[in-house]
Amino acid sequence: MKELRIDKITDDLIIFAADRMKRPLDKSSHQIEEQEETEVYSEWCPFCRGNEKYTTDPIYEIRRDSDWFVRSVYNKFPIIDESSTQIFGKHEVMVDTYRHNGSFYDMTEEEFEDMFIMYKNRYKSLIQEEKVEYVNIFKNFLRKAGASLMHPHSQIMSMSLVPPEVQNELNIGLKYYKENARSLYSDIIKEELEHKSRVIYNGSSFIVIVPYATKYSGEIRVIFKDGVKFENLMDADLKEISTTFNKLFKNIYEINGYMPFNLCFHTHPKNIDSMDYYNSHIHIIPRRFNFGGFELGADVHVSSIDAEELAFALMI
Amino acid sequence: MKELRIDKITDDLIIFAADRMKRPLDKSSHQIEEQEETEVYSEWCPFCRGNEKYTTDPIYEIRRDSDWFVRSVYNKFPIIDESSTQIFGKHEVMVDTYRHNGSFYDMTEEEFEDMFIMYKNRYKSLIQEEKVEYVNIFKNFLRKAGASLMHPHSQIMSMSLVPPEVQNELNIGLKYYKENARSLYSDIIKEELEHKSRVIYNGSSFIVIVPYATKYSGEIRVIFKDGVKFENLMDADLKEISTTFNKLFKNIYEINGYMPFNLCFHTHPKNIDSMDYYNSHIHIIPRRFNFGGFELGADVHVSSIDAEELAFALMI
Repeated sequence: MKELRIDKITDDLIIFAADRMKRPLDKSSHQIEEQEETEVYSEWCPFCRGNEKYTTDPIYEIRRDSDWFVRSVYNKFPIIDESSTQIFGKHEVMVDTYRHNGSFYDMTEEEFEDMFIMYKNRYKSLIQEEKVEYVNIFKNFLRKAGASLMHPHSQIMSMSLVPPEVQNELNIGLKYYKENARSLYSDIIKEELEHKSRVIYNGSSFIVIVPYATKYSGEIRVIFKDGVKFENLMDADLKEISTTFNKLFKNIYEINGYMPFNLCFHTHPKNIDSMDYYNSHIHIIPRRFNFGGFELGADVHVSSIDAEELAFALMI
Repeated sequence: MKELRIDKITDDLIIFAADRMKRPLDKSSHQIEEQEETEVYSEWCPFCRGNEKYTTDPIYEIRRDSDWFVRSVYNKFPIIDESSTQIFGKHEVMVDTYRHNGSFYDMTEEEFEDMFIMYKNRYKSLIQEEKVEYVNIFKNFLRKAGASLMHPHSQIMSMSLVPPEVQNELNIGLKYYKENARSLYSDIIKEELEHKSRVIYNGSSFIVIVPYATKYSGEIRVIFKDGVKFENLMDADLKEISTTFNKLFKNIYEINGYMPFNLCFHTHPKNIDSMDYYNSHIHIIPRRFNFGGFELGADVHVSSIDAEELAFALMI
C-alpha cells in the first residue's frame, strides 16, 4: 500500500511505502562504511590544535588557559568569496572541537556548548555586515555527506542572496499565513506536541521531531519556537540545545553507528520581515542512502521509515 | 573568480568556480570504486538469462531463435503500484541485456538498439493506458547511483501525475514561450549548434551536449529536436541514438572509468499540449561526487567542470 505525503515545510512529494525496505541487495556489494578516527591529533590536519600554521589567523576562538577549544578560520577553498558582484560573501570553517577524533557521536555537552556559542557568535557578526542578505550554516560529516576533511568541522557563509531552498520555504510559509491567518510553524509545533509520538524532545525554545513526511529517509528536524531569532538565542538556550544534541547523537549512534550526515540551518533572511510566518529550523539529514534516477528525474521521493518508531527509538 | 550561472532548462543556480577542484582530500580516504562485473551469468541474479523463474512472465521481450535479448518484467518492489488512488501506475524493470556483465560501457550497438527499441515500445504502450498522465524512464547504474541489483537494467513507470521536476521544466518552458514567442528548446539547440564547442554530437533527431550550467558536475544532455515525440521515434532514429550511446559511453569510460550514473528521461506528459514549448530530453548524470550540506540546504550548486573541455574529450 502506497501513500502520498507532502512535507508541509518544503512541499516535497513523498511516496510512503513501508514494503520497499524488503528489496534484495546483491550479496557482493555491501555498503562500505568509513572508519572512525581514533587519534586525537593528526600531523597533516589543518584543523588540529598545534597545526595552526596551516590556516590563516582565526576570526573567532574560545580559549581557556593558553589553549583554544573551537575556532573559526577563513575557508581556503571558498564556495563564494568577494571576487564577483553576482554572488558574494565570506566563507568560514568552524572547527567543532580541537580533537581530531571528536565527532557529534562522542562530543561532550561542553564541547557542543562551545560549538553552538561559536555558531551563534559568528552568525550574529556576519548577519550584521553590509550587503549580507543571508547567513548559511551547514555541516558535512564524512565523505558520503560531502566532507573533504575528516576533522569535525562546520561551515558558515554570508551570502548576497537568499538561497532558493530557503526562498521556497519562505514562499510556502507566506502562502499559508495569507490563506489561514496563522503561522504554518506554530501549527506544526502545536500539532506535533498534541500528537506527541513524533516528538523526540520538547525544549524551552525548540522542539526536535521526526517529520511525518520528508524526502530524506530518517531526517530529524529541530524547529525553533515562535519568535526565536537564531542570533538572539540566550545562553540557557544554547546550553539546552547542546545537552539535547549530545543525547540525540548518542542515540543515533546506537541505532545507526558512525553514520554520515548533514546539518542544514534555515534561518531568517536579514531584509525580509518573515518572523510572522517562518521559524528557524535545522534539518539533520542522514546520508546512508543514495538517491536514484527516480528521485533526481521526478523530484518525488520514496520513504519507508516509520516516523513514530524512529522518534521512539531516539527519544530523549 | 566565481561566476553565477543559471541552468535555462531547470532554473537551477550554479556557482561556477574552477578553483574548487584544488581542495585537499585526506590521504586516508580515497573514493572506493565498485568492482566491474566479469561473469556473463550469475546464479542468483533474477535478470540473467536462464533465471526467468525469479520474475513474473515478461511483458515485453525481443527474442531471436529461442533466446531473449532484452525483456521487461514487473518490478517486484514497485515504487508505485495500483494500491492507492493518490498516486498509481505500473512499474517495470527493463533488462538492458541478457549479459550480467553487460554495461553501457561495453554494450554493442546492437545491444543498445534492442534496448532503445524496448524503451520506445514500452513507453508507447504505457502512455496509451487509461488514467496515465506521464511515463517515466530512468536508469540507476551502480550502488552509488541508487542501483540495488548489478545486472544492467532500466526502469519504466506509468504515473497518475506529472512529476514535480518535469512540471517545473514545463513551467519554465511555457514562461519563456509566452515572453519570447519562441521555444526555449529551439533557442538552446540553435545556440549550441552556433557555439559548437559544447556539442558532442549533432544527430538527425537529437543533439548531445555538455550544458553550460547544470547542478550535476559532468552532466551530459541529449535534447531531441523540435517536433519529436519519444513514442514516435523512427527505427533510423533509434539506430542513430544507439550508435551514439555506444560511442559516448566508450568515451566516458576512457575518461572516468567504471563510473556510477543515472539516466533521467524527461518526455511530454500525455494531457498537456506542450509540443510548442517543451522538447523531450535525457539527463545523463555522473554520480561520482556527493552533494554536501550547502547543496542540500541552499539548493545552490558548485561546479568546476569546463563544459567545452569535457565536450571536446567526449566528442563523437
